[in-house]
Parts: sequence; structure tokens; C-alpha cells
Amino acid sequence: MQTRNTANFYTNRIDRLCDISLNLNLDFCIISSAPALTYYSGYFFYFEHGQSPFQVLPALLIISPKQGHTLLLADNEQPPEVTASILRVDTYQSYSFREPLSFPDQFDASVKSIIGKGSISKIRVGIESRSLPVFAADVIESSFPNVQWVDIFRDLAMERIVKDQLEISMIKSAAELCDLGQRTLKNNVKSGHTELELFSLVGRSINEAAGTRVPVMADFVSGPRTAQGGGIPSGKKILDNELLLADLTPCLNGYWGDCCGTIAAGNIISQQRNDFAKVKDGLFRAIDAIKPGVRSFQIDELLRKHVYDYPHHSGHGVGTMNHEEPRITPYNNMELQAGMVIALEPAIYRDDYGIRLEHLLLVTKDGAEQLTAFDYQL
Amino acid sequence: MQTRNTANFYTNRIDRLCDISLNLNLDFCIISSAPALTYYSGYFFYFEHGQSPFQVLPALLIISPKQGHTLLLADNEQPPEVTASILRVDTYQSYSFREPLSFPDQFDASVKSIIGKGSISKIRVGIESRSLPVFAADVIESSFPNVQWVDIFRDLAMERIVKDQLEISMIKSAAELCDLGQRTLKNNVKSGHTELELFSLVGRSINEAAGTRVPVMADFVSGPRTAQGGGIPSGKKILDNELLLADLTPCLNGYWGDCCGTIAAGNIISQQRNDFAKVKDGLFRAIDAIKPGVRSFQIDELLRKHVYDYPHHSGHGVGTMNHEEPRITPYNNMELQAGMVIALEPAIYRDDYGIRLEHLLLVTKDGAEQLTAFDYQL
Repeated sequence: MQTRNTANFYTNRIDRLCDISLNLNLDFCIISSAPALTYYSGYFFYFEHGQSPFQVLPALLIISPKQGHTLLLADNEQPPEVTASILRVDTYQSYSFREPLSFPDQFDASVKSIIGKGSISKIRVGIESRSLPVFAADVIESSFPNVQWVDIFRDLAMERIVKDQLEISMIKSAAELCDLGQRTLKNNVKSGHTELELFSLVGRSINEAAGTRVPVMADFVSGPRTAQGGGIPSGKKILDNELLLADLTPCLNGYWGDCCGTIAAGNIISQQRNDFAKVKDGLFRAIDAIKPGVRSFQIDELLRKHVYDYPHHSGHGVGTMNHEEPRITPYNNMELQAGMVIALEPAIYRDDYGIRLEHLLLVTKDGAEQLTAFDYQL
Repeated sequence: MQTRNTANFYTNRIDRLCDISLNLNLDFCIISSAPALTYYSGYFFYFEHGQSPFQVLPALLIISPKQGHTLLLADNEQPPEVTASILRVDTYQSYSFREPLSFPDQFDASVKSIIGKGSISKIRVGIESRSLPVFAADVIESSFPNVQWVDIFRDLAMERIVKDQLEISMIKSAAELCDLGQRTLKNNVKSGHTELELFSLVGRSINEAAGTRVPVMADFVSGPRTAQGGGIPSGKKILDNELLLADLTPCLNGYWGDCCGTIAAGNIISQQRNDFAKVKDGLFRAIDAIKPGVRSFQIDELLRKHVYDYPHHSGHGVGTMNHEEPRITPYNNMELQAGMVIALEPAIYRDDYGIRLEHLLLVTKDGAEQLTAFDYQL
């Protein structure tokens, strides 16, 4: 997609946020969470290094329907190209070896210059109170002592449930990395390898396909640990006749993929073969049942009925967060809509092993499109 | 080290924090930053997956000299074993598939039960305003409307500059992973590999040695990119006669290592050989010059004089943060003291290549001990 067309998607998203802002009678909104920053600005904080010691925040997006929109970045972060034409970018000095550290002061001055001169009149500011640090709120209060905070976290999350075409294409790119990871595993799994060795092959194939380091969250367990279904890879060797359960969740440019395969390192006992077939059959029954208007709990119910009453959800939305609405759970009455992206992950857990399969799906106007398509085989 | 002895280190650290708390007339302190949580509780948030969508914060440590100390964890986090005997652990429900998400309410209720019944009398609370989210501050204000916030971020950072024996042993473990990474590179570098392929080998060797996934921050660049000295690994192939600059910064159980090597993939031109020798000679002169009482800027000055006036610092402290005091910079008058851990990283940058070498050092009572010891060769 061309950059100019791409920017239109962000413009549309910001326009909708401005509508929310007007409805809530907000003077401006401050976006501070990673998922919302990606959604509104295209900025992706590369979290694999942890938090920088030289930043109050990697980025802050200030949406002002009246005065325009500014992305404030630490000057060691890259401004996103996709929104260069629609967002003003301001930076604060994050680190200098020439003088004592002063990034909090620099941040403070930048925020003040963006939000404008102080006033004692009452203003209302939309924030995400779970991600905005007290320091940043203090800066605004020092300019506007009569500020009234309005938490817009839930409003923002609701806005992101139905994906636009740009988001779908970005999630598809992440989903391709999922399939690649599963293919790499299927081609390389054998007893004698450690979980970490195999995980390393997966990471390498994903990084090389993407041409950069891609964060990958993963349940990656073999043998008895598959019975619990989760955990990070360890130095444990995979033994003859053990299963490997690999739930791969890569994050590419701020959008997550999600998939889970279970494969055998050697001989398969017949109960495992039956369970695998049951999980796979259930997964595809659920995929067939997906269409707009179906309620989330109905998909959950179908999977529990046809597969197993596993002690976790049947699935969840995926986007700039790896778990978001619609949650495919027993209690969730939310109707599926075209444009939602959901992961379904039925499983069967026995005393000594577990089998889980997961595909990522786009709800279309009359059904579901598979975004991950690897053909899982035990 | 045995767990009981290990706990004593944490007790000592917390006792010092209680002294600060008394001096500042604080009723309690709330620790929310990753470096301080590791330092006071042994809790390490595994940040490679990014932030969880089901946590207000992974952990919060409430230090109350009068009422005792409580570590509040999301219930999908592991309580640290090392402080099990000295900290009360409380949890809040992070996610349940059985009922709609309510982790903010759960967090709220847990914080209120820890800090006790509300009062209209004035209380003073020490916080880290850069890492404490507004949401958490609001919870406390709802119980104690007359709360006065005191930012103790700098006090906490100062406390951590001189390391205790437990910290030194933990940094040594991270430093061993640094040396292993450099050895892996030296044994495997050759033209034709991509940066990502080599980086993958490094990651694999580090993970396998640690028996778990270890986050590794890295400058990992070859050829022309070495002239700028930084950047994440890419899909670029390393060509004959190019240099590879690898600055490896692994984080093991919350403590960072740091090291940088520069190696050649083929023939070496004589200017590169000379520059390498000059950087290495300068690095060891600086190591020889380290001892208590020497000021940070003197080490910086020595390196710039004997090596090159590179456009970055000469080094920095390392601990639960990858960059901390003492910063080895032109302006820094701070005296070195026994127990400080510092990384020195002199470099020479030319138009078409760069060479940087870095060792991690412990300041001892009469000199420096190398924590990384790999013998860098071009």
C-alpha cells in the first residue's frame, strides 16, 4: 500500500477519536499505551529491550481537535513514516553524554509547549490512566491546575475491535510469520533437541523472513509440560514419543499474530491421535460456524461441546494487543462482526500430555477467512 | 549462595530504604519501576513479551516501616523465592475466562487492603513518578485524600550505585553470557552469513547456557553501519573484508551484562589493525587507571586522549539498569568507589567503519576486576 493511502487509515481513526473527544466534551486526549500509539500514530515501541532508562515515555500522542495532533517522541526513537503527513512530531532529548541527564525536564518543557500556555479555567483531558505515569500527569496539572481527567481506556479499546483494511494486511503479515514458525518446527522436530534449540530455529526463521528482530511470545513446552499447556522454552531435551506444544505469538510492527500447533517427536499413541483429530475437527467446526451475528459465547460453547471443557478461553481478539475483544468465553454475549480478527484455540489436556491447535481468523461478511493456514499434523 | 543468606541482602537494602523513608518523613513507599523492584524484592518482570493486557502493573512493592512490606503481584506472575521469608505477597486476579475482565477493580481492592483504611489526615508517600501509573495513584488518593506525593526516584537510583556481594555475583553471571556471546561470534563469523544469522547463534548459545530465554539488547552491525556504531541486526549479508561490531547486553534475572567486540570477516586493512590496537590499548590503560577516588571524568579524559574523541560516553554503570551512574562522561565529577560496576567502551569511527571494544569491570579496593574477560581479537 502506498504511504499516502496508508495515511488515510490513520486519519480516519483519528477523526473517530476526535468525535469521541467532542462527545465527552474533552479539550484534548493523551495517548500513552503501546496498543493505542500504534493504532493512532503507527509508532511501534520495540519492547524486546525493556524500558529505556532515558525516557519518561517512548512516545506520547496528543490529540487536540482544535489545535491539531502532535506525536512527542524521545529523540532516540524513530518517527513513523506512515503518519508523517498528518501528525506534527516533536522530540525531547533523551540522552546526552555532554551534560548531566535532564530528560525529565526536557520532556516537561516539550509537553508544555505542545499543550500551550496554562489557564486556570477548567479543562477536561482524556487519558489512559493505566499507562500514563504520574510524572506526565503532573506536567499537565502544572499548566492547567483545573484539569479534570477522563479515563478513555475502554473507549479506545472498543474502537479497535473491528479492523480496517490496513490493520488486516498488517495482521496477515504477522500471521505469515506464524505459519512459517509452525512449518519450521514440523520440518525440524525430533527427539534429542532441546526446547530452546527448536525455539531458536523458529526465532531465526521468523527474524530472517522479516529481515529484523521480531519479538515472539511463546508457550513452548514438551512432554509432561504440555499437560498444562503453557510455559517458556527450557533446556529440556525432547524425548522419544513426547509431544511439543508451540503457541507462537509474534509481534510485527506493533501487530500480533497467534497460532498454536502440537506435534509428535516420535511414535504416537492412539489416544493422542484421537485427541488430535478431535481438537482439529472442533477447530474447523468452529471456523465454519463463524459469521457476523453469531455471539462469542456460542463459539465457545460449540468448542467445549465438541472438543473438551479446557480450563481457559476458547479464543480472543488479536490486533495491537495480543488478547483483546471479542473474548471467546462462556460469558461473552458480544456479536461477531465483519472485520474482527479472532484466534480460536481449543485443546484437550490429559494427565500426561496436552494438545492445542489455534488458527487466526478474520470474520468476513458471510463467514471466516483463515489468516493462519498451516495444516497442523501430529 | 543459600536462600537464607541471600535474603539478608534484600533485608539490608530494605532497611536502608526505611531509613530514607524516615528521613523524608514518609508513611510508606511504593516501588513500581523494574530496576527498583528487582533490587528490593528480587522480582524480575520478563519484558520480552511486552506488557500484559491483564495487569495494571506486573508488580508493586509497598514498603511500610511501621506495617511491614508487601509485594503485590498479578496472579499470573511468579513470586520471587529469594524474598519469600521477608516480604508478604499479595495477588490480584489478572485474567479469568469465567467472568468479564475486572483486573483494575481487583488491583484497586488489593492496594486498598494493603495500605489500610482511609484517613483524612495528611500522609506522605514516596513514589517513582515516572513509572507509577495515574491509575495506581488514584487508588491511594481514594483512600487517603490528603496524600502528599514525594518522588524518590533519584534516591533509589543513588542507593543502587554501589553493589553488594549478591549483586556482584548476579552481574558476574550476566557477564559470563557476554563472554560466551563474543566467543560464539569469533568462532562462527565469516562472510556470507547475515547479521541475523550470526545474532541467532549468539542468542541460542546464551539461552542454552542460561537454560531459559534471556533478553539480549544488542548493537549488531556490519560493514558501513559499524561507522555509526549502533543498530539492531538486519538481513544484510556480511561481505568479505567487512567488520562486525557486536555490543551484547543480556539481562539475566534482572541484572544486565555489557560487552562489545569488533571482528573481521576476512582480510584486514592496516588502518583497521592499527585502530583496533589503539582501542584495545586505550581500554586496558583505562582499566589500569580505575581505582577508588579516581573521578569519572578522568577515565573519560584518558580514553579520549589515548583513543579517539568518539561522539558518545566512555562508559556507564551497570546493574538493574543497563545504563546508570557512574556515567563515564566529560562532565561527571563522581568519584569511583569499591563495589561500583562499570562498562568502558572506547571506540574509533572512520568514514567507512567503526571499532568499539567494551569490558565490564568491578571497582575493587585497589583497582578493577574484569567481569567480562573475553580476549578481543580483530
